Amino acid sequence: MSSTTPPLAGKLGGLQSSVIRDLLKLTSRADVISLAGGLPDAGLMPRERIAKAAEAALSTAACLQYTESPGWAPLRAVLAERESARLGRPVGIDEVFVTHGSQQALSLLAEVLLDPGALVIVEDPAYVGALQVFRAAGARIIALPMDSEGMRVELLAELLATGERPAVVHTVSNFHNPGGVTMSPARRQALAELADAHGFWVIEDDPYGELWFDRPAPAPVATYSRKVIRLSSSSKIIAPTLRVGWMIAPPSVFGGVELLKQGADLCGSALTQQIAADLLSDEAWLTAHVDTVRTAYGTRAKALVHALRASFGDRLVCTDATGGMFVWADFTDGTDTKALLPQALDAGVAYVPGYAFAATTGYANSLRLCFTTSDPVTLSEAVHRLARAAA
Amino acid sequence: MSSTTPPLAGKLGGLQSSVIRDLLKLTSRADVISLAGGLPDAGLMPRERIAKAAEAALSTAACLQYTESPGWAPLRAVLAERESARLGRPVGIDEVFVTHGSQQALSLLAEVLLDPGALVIVEDPAYVGALQVFRAAGARIIALPMDSEGMRVELLAELLATGERPAVVHTVSNFHNPGGVTMSPARRQALAELADAHGFWVIEDDPYGELWFDRPAPAPVATYSRKVIRLSSSSKIIAPTLRVGWMIAPPSVFGGVELLKQGADLCGSALTQQIAADLLSDEAWLTAHVDTVRTAYGTRAKALVHALRASFGDRLVCTDATGGMFVWADFTDGTDTKALLPQALDAGVAYVPGYAFAATTGYANSLRLCFTTSDPVTLSEAVHRLARAAA
Repeated sequence: MSSTTPPLAGKLGGLQSSVIRDLLKLTSRADVISLAGGLPDAGLMPRERIAKAAEAALSTAACLQYTESPGWAPLRAVLAERESARLGRPVGIDEVFVTHGSQQALSLLAEVLLDPGALVIVEDPAYVGALQVFRAAGARIIALPMDSEGMRVELLAELLATGERPAVVHTVSNFHNPGGVTMSPARRQALAELADAHGFWVIEDDPYGELWFDRPAPAPVATYSRKVIRLSSSSKIIAPTLRVGWMIAPPSVFGGVELLKQGADLCGSALTQQIAADLLSDEAWLTAHVDTVRTAYGTRAKALVHALRASFGDRLVCTDATGGMFVWADFTDGTDTKALLPQALDAGVAYVPGYAFAATTGYANSLRLCFTTSDPVTLSEAVHRLARAAA
Repeated sequence: MSSTTPPLAGKLGGLQSSVIRDLLKLTSRADVISLAGGLPDAGLMPRERIAKAAEAALSTAACLQYTESPGWAPLRAVLAERESARLGRPVGIDEVFVTHGSQQALSLLAEVLLDPGALVIVEDPAYVGALQVFRAAGARIIALPMDSEGMRVELLAELLATGERPAVVHTVSNFHNPGGVTMSPARRQALAELADAHGFWVIEDDPYGELWFDRPAPAPVATYSRKVIRLSSSSKIIAPTLRVGWMIAPPSVFGGVELLKQGADLCGSALTQQIAADLLSDEAWLTAHVDTVRTAYGTRAKALVHALRASFGDRLVCTDATGGMFVWADFTDGTDTKALLPQALDAGVAYVPGYAFAATTGYANSLRLCFTTSDPVTLSEAVHRLARAAA
C-alpha cells in the first residue's frame, strides 16, 4: 500500500508543451512589439455582426440544447454549398463534419487514421499543432522540405519508391504556417496522383486559403482526388471564439470521426454553430468582410516584407507574403535566431525562432514573423529594432 | 500499387455507436411519448438571461479571440469560488480546468491517466459516455454493482485484496445516470480511503449534484481525498449549448490535461465561457433559477414514480428519484425490456432498455426512464401506455 500520487499515462512523457506557447509568455511585455504571435486581429473581427447573429439565434430555444455530433444540420448545409463551389463538384451535407476548430479535426483524424507506429509525412518546417497531434498518436514522422512551390512532392515519390508506406500525408497547402509558401497546382496534382496510386490519405489543412492578397489560392488538392480529407475553419475569416472548423471527408472516415467525436465531447455548441451559419450564409456581407481582412493583412504583409528587404538586403531572404498571416525568413549570414532572441527582446521586438518549427532539428538561421496584428508603421519599427539587435 | 480506400486505425473496430443514440432515432416519432432521451428541458433553460450575457460579452472585442487552454481566467475564478464552497476548502484557480462539457474532461483524463490495458472500475449499470471513452483508451474494465447507497465499495475492497490495481475508479456519485441512486457518505469516505491507501485516481463525475429534490446531495467524494478528480458541468443547470464543463485536479493531472487540450482543440469558446462566467457569478439569479429547475424536475419525477407504483405495484421496483434526471426500474416478473420495446412503441411510449447500460451483459428486466421533458399528466399517460404494452 502507498499514499503516493497515482501515476499518469506513459505517453505523456513523450509530449511537451509547445515551444511557441512558452515563448509567448516571455514576449508579452508591453514594451515589445510582438511578431511572435499567431493570432488573427481581433480589431478586424465582425463583433457587431456576430452580436446581431447571437441575438437572432437566442430569440428561440432551438440554440440551447445539445446538437448533433457532426454539427447543426443547417450549418452543414451552408458549408456543403461553400465547399461545392470551392471543389467544383456537389459536396453532400453527409460529407461535412463540423469540429471544434480545425485543430479538433486534426486530432480526431489522427485517432481515426493512425495506428501506433504508422508513418505520417509532414512539411518541414511544420505546423506545430499537427506535429503535436501526430506525436500523441504514436506516429512515426518524416518531414519533407518545402521550396517556393510548397512541399517537395518529388521527394515523397522517392520515399514511396523505397517502399515506405505512409498512412497520412499532411499539408498546409495555402500560405503555409510557418513557411509562408503555397503549393503549386502541379505539385497538388502530383500529390493527389501519388495518394491514388499508393492508397494513403492526404489531410489538406486549409485555414488560410481565403486570405489571399494578390490572387486567389489555386484549386484545392481535394479537387484532384477523393483520398484527400479537406479541413478549413471560420477562425481566420470570422473569429476563433466560434470554435467552428470543418472537414470534408468520405463516408468511412466520417463514420469513424462521428464515433470518436461522441466520446471526445458529444457535440459542438448549437449557439456558436448557428452564429457561424448566419454569417457564412450571408454571402454579400461575408465577401465584403473577408475583402476587408484581406486588404488589411495584405497591406501589413507588404509593409513587413518591404521593411525586411530594405533593412537587411542580402543578409536575409524572406517569403513574398502572398496571403495568410506569416512571413518566413532565413538569415544568409549564419545569424543564430535562437541566440538572437534575447537581444531582440532587449531591443523591443519578438519573433519565433525557426527551430520551434523543426520536425527534428534545423532552421537555426530562420524566423517566423506574424504581421496580422500590427500596422505598417509598427511593423517598420519592429524591423528597425530587429536590425539593431542583429547589427 | 492500389487505388482502394486507405485503411482506418485498428482501434475503430472495437468501438460502436451508442445503442441509445441508435434507439433515439427509432423513438423520435410524433405519436410516441419518449422517456428514452437524456436531455434537460430546453423550456427551462434561461434563454433571456443567456441573451443578456451574450450581448454584454459582445459589447467588447475581448470575447472574440482564442482563449487560454485551461479556460478564460475570470470563469476559472468563478468556478474556484463555487467549488471552494462545495469542497469546504480553498480551491485555487490553478486547480480549475474548463472543458468542452464534462465529456471532454472524461476523454482528456482517459488519455492522461490510462496506458493501454490499465484497469478501470466503473459502476454497473454504467454511464455509457464513460464506458465509450475508457474502451477507446484500451482500458480493461471491471464494473461493480450498485445498491441504494451507490457503488458497492466493499466489493472494490475485495478486488483490491486480490491484488488488482486499478488506475482509475469512475463514479457518478449523485443521482446516477442511469441508476438513479446517490452514493452514501459512508461509501464516499470508504472509497476515498481506498484511493489514498492504494494510490489510484477517483474520477467523481457530478453533472447532477445541484438537481436535488428533497435534500442537498452529500459532500463530494473529493472532500475526503486529494486523489479525487472532480468533474462538473453547466449543461444541466444552465444549458448544454455553452459547452462548459470543468474539472478540479491536482497539478500533475492539470499539466497533462493542458498539454492534451492544446492538441485536442487548442481552447474553448471565449464567448460561451464569458456567458457562463456571467451567469455562474450572478448568485441570486442562479439560486432562483436552479431552484425553478429543481422544483419542476422534482414534480415530474414524483409524478412518474407515483404512476409507476400505482400502475405496476409489485411487478416493478423503481428508484425514489431524489434528484437528477432519471428513474431506474426493474421488472420483478421477468419481463424482457428489450423484447417489450417494440410493443411499447406501438402503444406510444419509449424508454431505454437496461441492457444498453450494461458494461458486459445483464439488466434484461430493467429500463431507464427520463422525466425531465414531460409534464406530470404526460408522464402519467406514458406509464398507462407502458402498462398496456406490458399487460
